[in-house]
Order: sequence, then C-alpha cells, then structure tokens
Amino acid sequence: MVTVTGKEYLHRISKLKTEIWLEGSLLQGPVTEHPAFKAVLQSKAKLYDLVHEKQYEDILSAKDHQSNFSYEPMKTKEDLEKHRLATQVWANQNAGLLGRSPEYGNTIITTLANAKDYFAMEGSEYGERIERIHKEALEHDLTFTHTFVNPKARKRSSFFSEEEELPIAAKIVDETDEGIVIDGARLLATQGGITDEVIVLPAGFEKDSLFAFSIPSATPGLKFLARPSYATDSLYDEPYSSQFEEGDAIVVFDNVLVPWDRVFLYKSERLSQGLFFETGLEPALLFHASNRQIVKTEWLIGLAEEMVETLKISQFQHIQQKLAEMITALEAMRAFVYSSEAQAGVNEYGMMVPFAPPLKAAVSYYQTTYPRLVEIIQLIGASNFIAAPNEKDFQSPIAPLLERFIGGYDTSAKEKVQLLRLAKDLTMGDFGSRQTQFERYFYGDPVRLSTNLYNHYDTRPYRDRVKTFLETLRKNDNSQAPIN
Amino acid sequence: MVTVTGKEYLHRISKLKTEIWLEGSLLQGPVTEHPAFKAVLQSKAKLYDLVHEKQYEDILSAKDHQSNFSYEPMKTKEDLEKHRLATQVWANQNAGLLGRSPEYGNTIITTLANAKDYFAMEGSEYGERIERIHKEALEHDLTFTHTFVNPKARKRSSFFSEEEELPIAAKIVDETDEGIVIDGARLLATQGGITDEVIVLPAGFEKDSLFAFSIPSATPGLKFLARPSYATDSLYDEPYSSQFEEGDAIVVFDNVLVPWDRVFLYKSERLSQGLFFETGLEPALLFHASNRQIVKTEWLIGLAEEMVETLKISQFQHIQQKLAEMITALEAMRAFVYSSEAQAGVNEYGMMVPFAPPLKAAVSYYQTTYPRLVEIIQLIGASNFIAAPNEKDFQSPIAPLLERFIGGYDTSAKEKVQLLRLAKDLTMGDFGSRQTQFERYFYGDPVRLSTNLYNHYDTRPYRDRVKTFLETLRKNDNSQAPIN
Amino acid sequence: MVTVTGKEYLHRISKLKTEIWLEGSLLQGPVTEHPAFKAVLQSKAKLYDLVHEKQYEDILSAKDHQSNFSYEPMKTKEDLEKHRLATQVWANQNAGLLGRSPEYGNTIITTLANAKDYFAMEGSEYGERIERIHKEALEHDLTFTHTFVNPKARKRSSFFSEEEELPIAAKIVDETDEGIVIDGARLLATQGGITDEVIVLPAGFEKDSLFAFSIPSATPGLKFLARPSYATDSLYDEPYSSQFEEGDAIVVFDNVLVPWDRVFLYKSERLSQGLFFETGLEPALLFHASNRQIVKTEWLIGLAEEMVETLKISQFQHIQQKLAEMITALEAMRAFVYSSEAQAGVNEYGMMVPFAPPLKAAVSYYQTTYPRLVEIIQLIGASNFIAAPNEKDFQSPIAPLLERFIGGYDTSAKEKVQLLRLAKDLTMGDFGSRQTQFERYFYGDPVRLSTNLYNHYDTRPYRDRVKTFLETLRKNDNSQAPIN
Amino acid sequence: MVTVTGKEYLHRISKLKTEIWLEGSLLQGPVTEHPAFKAVLQSKAKLYDLVHEKQYEDILSAKDHQSNFSYEPMKTKEDLEKHRLATQVWANQNAGLLGRSPEYGNTIITTLANAKDYFAMEGSEYGERIERIHKEALEHDLTFTHTFVNPKARKRSSFFSEEEELPIAAKIVDETDEGIVIDGARLLATQGGITDEVIVLPAGFEKDSLFAFSIPSATPGLKFLARPSYATDSLYDEPYSSQFEEGDAIVVFDNVLVPWDRVFLYKSERLSQGLFFETGLEPALLFHASNRQIVKTEWLIGLAEEMVETLKISQFQHIQQKLAEMITALEAMRAFVYSSEAQAGVNEYGMMVPFAPPLKAAVSYYQTTYPRLVEIIQLIGASNFIAAPNEKDFQSPIAPLLERFIGGYDTSAKEKVQLLRLAKDLTMGDFGSRQTQFERYFYGDPVRLSTNLYNHYDTRPYRDRVKTFLETLRKNDNSQAPIN
Repeated sequence: MVTVTGKEYLHRISKLKTEIWLEGSLLQGPVTEHPAFKAVLQSKAKLYDLVHEKQYEDILSAKDHQSNFSYEPMKTKEDLEKHRLATQVWANQNAGLLGRSPEYGNTIITTLANAKDYFAMEGSEYGERIERIHKEALEHDLTFTHTFVNPKARKRSSFFSEEEELPIAAKIVDETDEGIVIDGARLLATQGGITDEVIVLPAGFEKDSLFAFSIPSATPGLKFLARPSYATDSLYDEPYSSQFEEGDAIVVFDNVLVPWDRVFLYKSERLSQGLFFETGLEPALLFHASNRQIVKTEWLIGLAEEMVETLKISQFQHIQQKLAEMITALEAMRAFVYSSEAQAGVNEYGMMVPFAPPLKAAVSYYQTTYPRLVEIIQLIGASNFIAAPNEKDFQSPIAPLLERFIGGYDTSAKEKVQLLRLAKDLTMGDFGSRQTQFERYFYGDPVRLSTNLYNHYDTRPYRDRVKTFLETLRKNDNSQAPIN
Repeated sequence: MVTVTGKEYLHRISKLKTEIWLEGSLLQGPVTEHPAFKAVLQSKAKLYDLVHEKQYEDILSAKDHQSNFSYEPMKTKEDLEKHRLATQVWANQNAGLLGRSPEYGNTIITTLANAKDYFAMEGSEYGERIERIHKEALEHDLTFTHTFVNPKARKRSSFFSEEEELPIAAKIVDETDEGIVIDGARLLATQGGITDEVIVLPAGFEKDSLFAFSIPSATPGLKFLARPSYATDSLYDEPYSSQFEEGDAIVVFDNVLVPWDRVFLYKSERLSQGLFFETGLEPALLFHASNRQIVKTEWLIGLAEEMVETLKISQFQHIQQKLAEMITALEAMRAFVYSSEAQAGVNEYGMMVPFAPPLKAAVSYYQTTYPRLVEIIQLIGASNFIAAPNEKDFQSPIAPLLERFIGGYDTSAKEKVQLLRLAKDLTMGDFGSRQTQFERYFYGDPVRLSTNLYNHYDTRPYRDRVKTFLETLRKNDNSQAPIN
Repeated sequence: MVTVTGKEYLHRISKLKTEIWLEGSLLQGPVTEHPAFKAVLQSKAKLYDLVHEKQYEDILSAKDHQSNFSYEPMKTKEDLEKHRLATQVWANQNAGLLGRSPEYGNTIITTLANAKDYFAMEGSEYGERIERIHKEALEHDLTFTHTFVNPKARKRSSFFSEEEELPIAAKIVDETDEGIVIDGARLLATQGGITDEVIVLPAGFEKDSLFAFSIPSATPGLKFLARPSYATDSLYDEPYSSQFEEGDAIVVFDNVLVPWDRVFLYKSERLSQGLFFETGLEPALLFHASNRQIVKTEWLIGLAEEMVETLKISQFQHIQQKLAEMITALEAMRAFVYSSEAQAGVNEYGMMVPFAPPLKAAVSYYQTTYPRLVEIIQLIGASNFIAAPNEKDFQSPIAPLLERFIGGYDTSAKEKVQLLRLAKDLTMGDFGSRQTQFERYFYGDPVRLSTNLYNHYDTRPYRDRVKTFLETLRKNDNSQAPIN
Repeated sequence: MVTVTGKEYLHRISKLKTEIWLEGSLLQGPVTEHPAFKAVLQSKAKLYDLVHEKQYEDILSAKDHQSNFSYEPMKTKEDLEKHRLATQVWANQNAGLLGRSPEYGNTIITTLANAKDYFAMEGSEYGERIERIHKEALEHDLTFTHTFVNPKARKRSSFFSEEEELPIAAKIVDETDEGIVIDGARLLATQGGITDEVIVLPAGFEKDSLFAFSIPSATPGLKFLARPSYATDSLYDEPYSSQFEEGDAIVVFDNVLVPWDRVFLYKSERLSQGLFFETGLEPALLFHASNRQIVKTEWLIGLAEEMVETLKISQFQHIQQKLAEMITALEAMRAFVYSSEAQAGVNEYGMMVPFAPPLKAAVSYYQTTYPRLVEIIQLIGASNFIAAPNEKDFQSPIAPLLERFIGGYDTSAKEKVQLLRLAKDLTMGDFGSRQTQFERYFYGDPVRLSTNLYNHYDTRPYRDRVKTFLETLRKNDNSQAPIN
C-alpha cells in the first residue's frame, strides 16, 4: 500500500514554501506549526491515517490499493456507490465541515485526466499533460485547492486611474518557450496556500483568461492573501473552529510563469465552455458535495437531538416538527444522490456520470435549506446560548455555582455547556457564520443557480403533454367548430 | 390476455346497485349515466383500455399477461421499477388527478394477500380469506375504495342525548353464524359507492372496531353519503373537473352483515397495530402515491411552462425562480422514490418493500409543497384569471372583441383562455381547491405526519457521533482534570 | 336628509340600460332582477339603508347630513378618523368582500374634485367639469366603477395581421364639437356595468390614451364583457357567494362619444403623471382599501375562532400559533392606518392626505399575507371540508345520519356544516379563489408594487447615518493614516 | 440642569465594587478600565453627554430640565410622543444595539413608582419605598439592569443529590429586622454588574420567590457570572463589537441581605400577578423596546442600501424586493408604535398607557422578522464576506494588491471592506450572532409570546359577527324550517 500516512503528509506539507499573507504579515516557518493552519492540517492528516485503518482501507483506497479512492475514475455504478461511501467516511471524520476535503480537488484532477481526449482535441500534448498531472498526484497523494472565479471587473473613477491599467482578473500577459506568464488575481480559494498545488480553471469570457493548469502552491510569484483566521485554541470552548477552520484566500498571480507541461487547456473557447459538462466534472463535484452535505446534515440532526434530550424538550410539538424538518432535509439530500446514481450513464470518456439534474436540484435545495437547519439549532438552544460560560469558568471558584444553577437534568453543567458551545460554534460566531455563508454560496449565487437550473432543464415533455391534452379537447369539442 | 377492457368495465359498473345519497337524493339508475360519476368512470375505463394498447401492455399487465400489474406482488427491485413505471403511465392518463386510480386499492389487496401468513397468525382461515379476495379481484379486475378513519367520538350535551346511545364509529354490534354485523360510520372514502368493493381496515383502539374485510359496495345496509359533486360539463371551461372529479363520501353501515369469508382480521389488537408496517402496506401505498404525485408535478410544470411561454414572461427572473422551485420539487419527489428503491429490502413475506423513511419524508414534503406549486401557478396566471371569459362567450357575437383585446401573442384568444381555464380549474374553484386540500391531507394531518416522521426515525447513530465526539474531546482535554 | 335609500337606489339601477355581455348573451331586462347581479345589488342597497339608521347616520353622512360621507373631502385629522370608521362600518356589512363598495368610486370623484385646481392648470374648464361631476354624483348618490389598466399591446403573427390595425388599448380616434371618440378596451372593471357611471383614468404612456372622464355606464357603444358569474343561490351552501359576488368585466369602447363636459383631463402628460400623487388620490384609495382589509381580517379571525371553538381544537399549540399569526396581521394592518393618520399632512388643495408610505407598505404586506390567512382557515378546517354535505342533504332522509355521524360537540350537524361551508365559500371554490386572487393583485402586481415601494422610499437618511458613522471611525482611527 | 455628564457617570461607575466573574477570574480594578466593559460604558457615557447638547436637551430631559426624560412618568399623549422621540435619539447613538440603554431600567423604576398605590395595597410602606427608590435614581441619574427569569428547576439524579438540597431559583431564606435574605440565582441580566443597581422582579409561582426590590450591584453576596466578552478592539475590523458589546450575566444571590427599605413587593401573589399589566409596566417596556427596534431597523436599511450602492447591485429585481421587505418591516414597526399611541388610555395611576395589543404584536413580529433582516444583509454581502481582509492587511505590503483586486467602483478597497466588515460585525460573528439571538428571545420565547398574544386577545367581537351572520341566515332561510 503506497498511500501516505498522516505523518508523511504533514511532513511533506511542512516543507511547503508558499507565500501566504495573513493579517498583514508574510507567514514564516512551517505552515504545519502556524496557529491558523496547524489544526486543520492535523485534521486532514487524520483522513490519511484513516486510509490505513483496517475497516476503511477497502473503501478509501483504489481497487489496487495503490492510491487513494479519489484518484480512481468512476466507471461503473458500483464505483459511484464506493465513492459515495468513501466520501461520507471522510466527511464524517470532520462533521462535514471541511469544504475542501482532499478528495474534492483529487476528483477534479481525476475526472479531467479521465477525459484527456477532450483536451487532446486542441492538440495531443494537452491530453498528455493532464494525464501526467494526475499520475504524479496519485503517486504522491498530493492535495489541491482550485479556483475558477474572477474578481469583478470595474471601471473606476479618475482617482484610481493608475491602477486601471493593470489587469484585475488573472490573464496571460506573456508566452515564452518555458511557459505562459499570468498576472492578476482569482477569487477565491478555500485552503489557499496550504495544499500542494492549486488547480486553475478557465474563468470569464476573454480569450486570455481561458486556461487550465495545476501548479505547486509554492510557485514563485504566486501569493495567497488569506482572510483573518477563525481558528481558536480551546477544544472545549470551540470544538469545531479549533479543529476545522480551513481558511479562504484570494490568489494573486504576480507574473507567474506556468510551465507548458502544466497547461492542459489554452485559449480554447470551445473547450472552456464545455469543460464542466462534457468531461463529467460538474456532476462529479456536485456528487461529492452532496455526499459531504448529507454527512453534515446527519451531524446537525445528531446535535439537535442531543440538545433536545439534554434540555428535556422532546415532548413539545413544535420541537418535534423542527426535528421532522431536519429529517426531511436529510432524506431529500440522500434521495438526490440515490436518484443521480439510479439515472447515471456513461459518457464518451467511459466515465459513469451521476445524473446531473437531481444533483443540481440538491445544491440549489441545500443553499436555502442549510440556513434553516442552522436556525433550528439556534431555536432549540434558545436563550441557553446567551449567558453560556466557558472552560475557564469551569476551572475557577465559580464552577460549583455553575453546577448548581445551570447543571443539566442528567448531565453536569460542564457537559451541558460543552454541548451548547458545540452548537454555538457550529451555528454562530465567526466559524459558524462562515459555514452558513459557505453553504449558501457553495457552487455560486443562489439566484443564479436556480435560474440556471430552470434554463437547462428540459420541460418540453411536460409542456407537450399539456399542449396535446388541450389539442385533444379541441378536437373532441364540437362546439368549437363554428368559431375557429 | 384476460384483463377487462374499458367497455367491459363500464358495463359491469353500470349494473352496480349501490346506495348512494347525493345532494339529498338517492341515486337512481346506472351510476355510469349519472352526471356526477359518468365522466370519472369513463376516465377510469380509459385506463383499462390502455392495458390493451401494444405500447403499454407489457408494463400494465402482470408478467403472465393474465391480470393487471397491480395484482402482482412486488418481489424484486425490477418489480419496483415496473410498478413505478406502470403507476406513472396510468397517472399520466389523468394528470395525476385521480387520488384513487384503480391500482391504489388493488395494491392494498395484493400486499395484504401476499402477507397472508400475517393474518394466519390468528387462525389459518384469515390468511385463506384474504388470499381468496385477492384471487377474485385479480380474475375480474375489480376496483376498490377503502376507508380507515373513524368519525370523531364526542360527548354531546343533553339536547342530543338520545343519539349518544348510538355508536358513531363503525363497530361490531353482533356476531352470527353468517358473519359480523357492523353499525356506525367511517370517514372518508374517495370514489365511495362507485367501486366494486370497499375495503375496511381497522381504525381506532377499541376492540370492536378492529376488523378488516372487503365487501361489495352494494351490500345491503351499506350507504354512501356523497358530498355534492364538483363535476362540470364543459371540456373547454373546466377541462379537468369535467373528466376527473371522483367524489368523496362518508360510509355508513346500517347494521351491515359482513359474511365471515370476507373478514381477514377480527378483534386482534396485535395484528391491527402491525398491519401497516409488518405487511409492507404503508410503504407500498406511499410508493404508489409518490409516483402519482411525481406525474402530477410534471403536469403542473408543463402547465406553468406553457403559460410562461404563452404569456411571454420567461425573461423575468422571479418567474425563472418560481419555475426552478417547481423543478426542485419534482426532482425531490423523484429522488425520494429512487431512494426508496435503492434501499428496498425483502420482508418476511417475500415482498420487496420500498424503504419507508424516504417515502414518509416524501409524503410530508408534498403536503406543504403542493400548495406552493398551486400558488406558483396562480402567481404566473396573475390577473389574467380575473376576467377570463368562457366557452359560450367564444360562441357569441363578442368573440371578435375577445380576439382583439385578449388574444395571445402567437395564439388565438380562445386558445389562450383555454390554457388559463385549465390552470384555473386545477388550482382554483371547487375542483382545484379540493385537489389542494386532498394533497394537503393525503395520508393524514401534516402536523401528525411530521411528528410521526420524527418519532419513528432512528436518530441514534447521529446522536452517538455527537456524544462520542464530545467524549473524545473530554479525554484529550487535560484542563478538565482538576474539576470533575 | 337627501341620501337615497336602498329601495330608491335599486329602483334607479333597475332602469340602467347598460350593454353587458355575460356567458355569450346580451343581458336583457333589469340588472336588478338578473341572477348574476341581483344579490350584490341588494347587498349594496343595504349599505344605503344603513345610512338612514339612527346609530350610523352621523358617521355615514356628510357633516351637513345632505350627502354620503364619501362625497365630503377629508380636510382634518378628524375627517380621516371619520372616513376610517365609516368605511369600516360599510365594509363590515359585507365582511369586507365587496372590493368596490360605493365609497371607493366616490372617493375617486371627491378627491379629484377637491383638487380641481390641479386639472385647471391645463384650462379652467377641466377644473369646472370635475367639480360638476362631483356635484351631480353627490346629489344623486351615484355609484361608480373605474378602470385604469390597458390591455397588453402585442405584435402578432401574420395570421392575425388584420386585427393588428385596430387599436387594442382604448384610444382617442376622433375629436368633434360634441366630444372625443374613444375606441379600444380597458381591463378591468369590478362591478363593470352595474354602476351608474364608469370613471376612466389615464393609462399607458401614449398621448392618445391620456384622458380622464366619467360617463354613464349606459353610454352608447360602451360594452361590458363580464366574466362568468360566481353567484350562487343557496344562503346555506354558499353564504358569501350568494350575496357578495360583484363581477368583473372588460370594458370595450366601440367608438364611444364622450361629451366634452365629462372630460376633465385631456392629452396632458404632466397631469397624467402626477394624477395619483399630487391630488392625494393614491393615499386616499389606499386608506380606503386598508380599512376594508382590516374588516375583512377581523371576519377571518372571527371565522377561524368560531371554527376552533366548534371543532374544540383551541388547546393545540400549532392552532394557537396560527391564530396569533392572524392577530398579528390584523394589528399590523390597523397600525399601518393609524400610522398614516398620525403622519398625515395637508396638500396644496387643502386635503388632509394620509401619509403614503405606511399605506404602500400595507397594501404590499396584505398581498402576501391575505393568502396566508386563507391558508390558515383551510388548515383549521382540514379534512372536515372534504366530505361536507349541503343544504339538500339536510332536507333529506339522510339528515339524521348526518346528525349522528358528523354533528358537533355543542352544535347540530347542520350548524357545524353551515360554519364549514362559510369557511369553504370564503377560501375555496370560485368565489373564494377569486377573493384570494383579488387581494393578491389588488392595486397591482406584487413584484411591481414592492419594487415601487423601494424605488420611491427615501432611504437616504439611514444611508447617511451609516456613512457618517464610518467616516467618524476613519477619523478616530489613527492607524489608517499611513495608508491613504 | 442637574443630569450627569458622561464624565461624571464614568467617574461614578469607576468606583463600583461589584463582584463580576469573567472567564474564571474575579474582575479587579475599575470596571471602566476593563477591556470587556470599557467601551460599552463609554458608549453609555456618550448618551449622558447627549442630554447636554443644545439640540437634544429639551427632548432628553424632563420638562423641568432637572432629570432625565425617562424618570418622568408618561401622563399625556404628548408625553408618549416625547418618550418615543427621546428613546429613538438615544437608540440612534448606538444603532439600536444596546438592549439595555439606560432609559429601559429607568422606565421600570418610573412606571412602578408612578403606580405606588398599587404596591401600597399591601401596606403603605411598599408604596413609599418604590417612590423613594425612584427619587434617588432620578436625583443621581442612576442606571439599572433587571432580572425576572428563574433558572429551570430540576430533579436530578442521585449523583448530584447533594446539590439538590440548595435552592436553585433565588428565594427568601431568611427574614430579619434589617431585611430579607435571598439565596439562589436569577437568569439573565444584560449589563449585569456594570449598572448602579439591579432591579429584581417576582418570578415563578412559589411564594418565597415573589418579591421585588432594587439594590446596588455592589451589595455583599451579589455575584454576576458574566459570559465571555465579545468585545474587540479594532474600530475598523469590528466597528460595533468594539463599542457596543454590553455583556450578559447570571445573577447569583449568596445569602444577600436586602434591606427592608429597598423591598416594594413581598410575598404577594396578587400583586405579582398583576404587576406587569396593572401598573402599565409591560406596555411601557414594549413601547421602549419597539422604538429601539425601529431605530435598529433604520440602521439595517441604511447599511443594506449603502452596500447595494457600493456593490452597484440596485438594478437587480431580487435585491429591490429584499430592500422592500426591509422597508415594510420598518413601516410595520413604526406603525405598531403609532397604533399604540393612538389608542393609548389613562390607567388608574394616572399614567397614559400605550395600547398593549399592537405592541405585543410588534414584539412577536420582530422576533421572526429581525432574523430575516439579518439574512437579507448576508444575502446582499454574499460571497464578498468570505475572503474579506482586515485592518492589518491594509497596513501591510499587500495593501496595493487589495486595492487593485477588490477595490470598489467608487470607493477604495479599504472603505469598501470597512463597510463589509460593518455588515459582518452586525450579522455574523459572536457579536452579530448574539444580537440575532437577543432579538429572537427578547421578551421571551417566540412560541410562548405568540400563544400568549392569542390567549389574551379579545376575538369575541369578531366571533360574534360570524355567529350573528349565520343566525341571520338561518332566520331568512325558510328551507330550514322542516328540519330543525
């Protein structure tokens, strides 16, 4: 078995020399030691260790046990099932809170490499390159983040006229024998700077921003402008943000030279347009994401139930209805995935592609449903959240008072408050608020996604039924004769 | 092939001598000629004709082509798929508007007969009886309605004291050699009085209302108190209510003698309690209903789209979002069904039982979603509904004025108004309003169904994750030591 | 006292010779005898009788007791209060179900006549004409309907090319010594054809559709294309639709000559644009409508409560919450009116104008709230609606069975069902469905009204606070210095 | 003019010797210097300074200019208007974010003192004491917090049996010549520990927890267990939480001796029950709170608009609809207040009491509306929030990159981000999340408040209309005769 262990993974990542800017400082020393990133990297390391656990190794490795499951393309319905289960096992390890669990980026590379003939349409070298990138990734269990959103272009007033000359969105500014030179920025890479590589996919409509490549995060000129970290350090006070804060960053290309052998799509409008659907990439990503969201929903239900039992409020009808709402959401998300599997089909690159419409519905559904699930947790915890003490309070002389006044029915005050803080950490505060916003904008603006769902959905068969029905009525209806 | 044709079916039904009271009168003459029931019986007849159509006969008949598909129990996943498709084919024939399409009742009989050993637990004769009932039904393609809701018991003030002596809910009042004598009422049988037989399942908790049997609708003493009919007679003005109004009735047992050989459950609390789940009946009914609701949703989308195109309003974002909402609902309903198939399992009577939780979520989801779909249709039609003319207007001298002033972009006024009236008939008026109320209370009160969903859902695995997670944190957390 | 009695009113209306087309026929004989209009005219007659009742005459007459309250312009806050109370007294008489209670049209005439100088800006004769129209109306207690919506213009395909030549929206096609000639149509006049006169206000943007006049409904060439009537004839079965169905119609001008002395606005873009706001018309109409909606909401609450008590379900928390929702809606609607009174101000024509923003919020709020109130009634009645019998059933041999099986706790079956049918009539069926659509589109499309609310609302003071707050922070914040 | 200045206020507060526990430590040194409380006390000081500003002194002082406006009881409708305006002026100073602005506690003392005869019903000394407490408060411009919620009583398992002996809810454990001795706890005092005094009102139903008094926060034995502070220190990064974090605390009475002369209600069930309504206290508090919420809503609208303009998204219909939703909420809240004023009446203690029902509707409405307003802000900011940099980033070498890549259309990146951070601070993170939870549970659990609204609302007049209507129909309806 050649997949890395958590230790090996951390060792490799500790050597990364990425340029990360955080709260105005250039990050120094190994990223694995930095308070903003240490915990999330350890959480990811645990995922790699899981691959080596007896009970999971079959599911988390490729069939030949030579690489991670996510580096093996999905070819059959059984593969879909396996990827579903594997994604859920990994997601369960972090309560579904890592938006960029390693298999997400791996899936991009694997799906694209599987469709190498797609890229080869513009030259066989493009197909070979993505294949090679995939092979390297597989062999070293590399991790990826990715980015495909441009910053908003804008006309600015004279005061800022100087800057206007500079490209805003990342663009090709030069082309040399070694490769292409990119200047400008991309929004927005989760875990930006702390993965081995960053995958850059085409964005926008202008020819010189249509490129796809994967390069090491530590490539010269590549800068990650990380937002302030929400990582905390008390496992008791903030059980999730002390472990799963993954960070987000703006990616800046300061005249970055991207070697030709990393570029697998170049200035091709045709390939850029079809990229997400013809290769099977979008369904693959939505399939992954939905499975993660299923696990996250299970955790939310577990949390809600545990609170309901601890606070002894399960007898209230409105509480039961709220839980039923959560259960319906879970069943719906699961169902979307089963539906995508049941209707999956093989594309021209031999990939078993999960059926897209239920997955598009899933992502659209979850964007509005997740905030409601969060609200339900907040409504269950109610005013209990408002004066909740913290770990230090329980280590102080007032601990006995807390025990006396806010202890639970069958739990100590400290355990009850720990549960409340878990709920608070997930649904409020910096970490929880960002989780909500992340799910709400996952895969794009909800208005855009829902209009997109409509615009690409084939409603003709249903319209035709209505037309036919009315036409039949008209034929049967003699009364009509004299008029038309 | 021995299944009946529409004509044979109508002929048989025309001979029924059921006691139906409608708007204060005892129905006289063949029910197939009565304005309240004629159309719906013809609509059902078309379903039987469909079984004989080349393109549908494989799907709509049992494997041996000797009976209707719905008289064949589901034994494999392929059977589930076949029943899904067949149910949808039939539902499509009436736009999903018949709440009691024949296969619904057939499914009850078939599922119970398949679980004959369940009934035999209280005596082998019970098993034999349900088996015989099934055999007869299958051979003659009988149709059924059913009832399992008691009228509300009540203590009434002295003014009504005389009546209080009488049982309200249908109860056993005598037991003779020939059979049991039932007196009292049951709410509520859709298509009550116009099916061959009525299936009566246990209701309530009192021993003398715990019985199950199927008897001819024309059994002496059996009265159907039908609500006023919503049937109309213009295919143009009310395209749906002129074809698919199926009626609802209170069923009154006026000392009805039920022969022993029709009784397959008698005074057994144990069997009454387990009836819906242990035999697989509830999942089977929910599976049927969800498939019908899928087709209904497709028709609603078709209607919405046809209106959007006819009124040329597809460019509005809020319209697109409303359509996307409908599409999401369709995908969710479909997904619940796929989920129930993917997770189906064989019960102890050899039935392949669709997995219940997604179907329970489906029915709960649709109760609140259907009214929203209806509202969207109303919002799309907007003020167009308010002054819509009718068929007679188009046959009168003002027809040219209507053409001039309210004609469509690419359609004549008459065609445009026909479409609007279709939407109106489905979502407003007596027929449309009853459809909404029917879906809202299909399978029971929404509050009760959602609390039931919660109370029977196994959330323990998810709670346990949360508990384990917190316990692990407590172990890792040395700071805790000095306190507890 | 010179205001008419109900009898006088009916007598006058019975002589109207309006051209009304209904279900393809030209209406013959007195409208007061026609089954479609008889009941609503009697309901309006009762309003006129009310003016003569001791307890109401002060509130329902003008201060000099010489005319109806609604012919007296609002000049003081006391007048606002009086109009509020009077409008509510009248609305209460029909449960708020008449969208066009007489004072609505009267208010248009009165408000415009009060602002006669507005019209006089384009020539003193315009001011004099509206004043004269008001005087006549006041003296004879005339009733009005009005219309200000054009049918949608459209480019149509060649098949219909002939019609395309004809104007669709009502337009000036000629101008003679006697008056102007109008050809085309207007959508949509509630009670079209059964009022003394019809007020026509400017619509659209083209000069030749910019006119305002009031003419007798019986003017030659004026046709009312009424939609099919929802009037029913059993007070028991449909207590509301048998009394308050008011009708809606398309108004067609077939080269109608409008005498000059009825025209008070002519081809003036300036006056057309300012008409609704500068004269105070819009706030006056919204004030009236909100008061009617308050009364309607009170009736809905009364109905809901009566059902809750009759069905003995007031102990359920979800029922209590639904009632609380209704109460909040009532308090909100009332509050919007009090707010508009508290902030009212005098315009340049001496009118005390209710403050518009709360009234615009009210109408927008009610468009989405009314359907929810209706839904709550439906949820309270639940499955009770489905098999509800009718009056004939209670006059038949099955009456005792109904009493036994569906009688109430403290009420007879007949009384309980009467209540249920009241709820059904209000919220379902043709009449109820039209009520919902009427409130939903009252005063225009909800999307348009809400964006209009936003676009005319002065949010600058609140934005300025935010700007100032941030600027102050920037000044206090020394850290900023080195950067900007 | 004798009202204190901000400086005087801070000086007085700096001498408080309250026992506050925060994150496990006993707070040392002046509270005015402590990072958790310094800022909020300065924000309160600004309120006192405002009283001395020319433009506000008339509105913020009592009529005799000898005390704060909130120490003067409301006797006339003009007083109501003045209190409305004054409350809004103060609330505006902190964007409505201080849940316990000084006038809130003052209003409690003032309202109760005005109803001194109420307390005197159990002995004249009680009336005199509350009067004296008010007089002292007024003369020194004292500040108050208050508490009237008991911790949940519970039976606990044997493991905790020792503690069970101790009272949990604050109770009278002794009564001496000097006063009463209280032991136990109260939840939950906002600003607990940082006000001059704490008002304790009756809670629960047991006689020994029925008392009302006001004592200095620094009374021996009185402990405030503060929750961890959300105060931050960068005006740029968190503009609100760095100024308005007010804290919440559990109040513990460790055998606190409350001198008799502070006790104005003692073991009186009758007075405890009527306290909130008969004295006018509840309407007074709801009136205050609604006015604060109005200002908060104005700030939310200002913020939303400023974002919409800065991000140039005002042209989107869905954005306009969201703003319209906010405007409707603002108009509704304002309207509830006007309604309460218009219908206000004088109680038996001479107080002009704002009419309660609209205020109860307001508080219930805002509990569900505020979270939606917050959600709208989050939806407007969208993914802009996710990678937002902070102040340090703008002081670092990457500032030019931020300017280039995320600068606004007409604003610098730093100003644009400042605005986004303002929105984030208000709606997300610890401070924002607590604001949402505070408004959601302000005045109690939403389910309880809404059922309370229903249970105390007089719906009889509306029910009676329905009954009378149906009775009238029955009388008119001859058809009924033969049956009843």
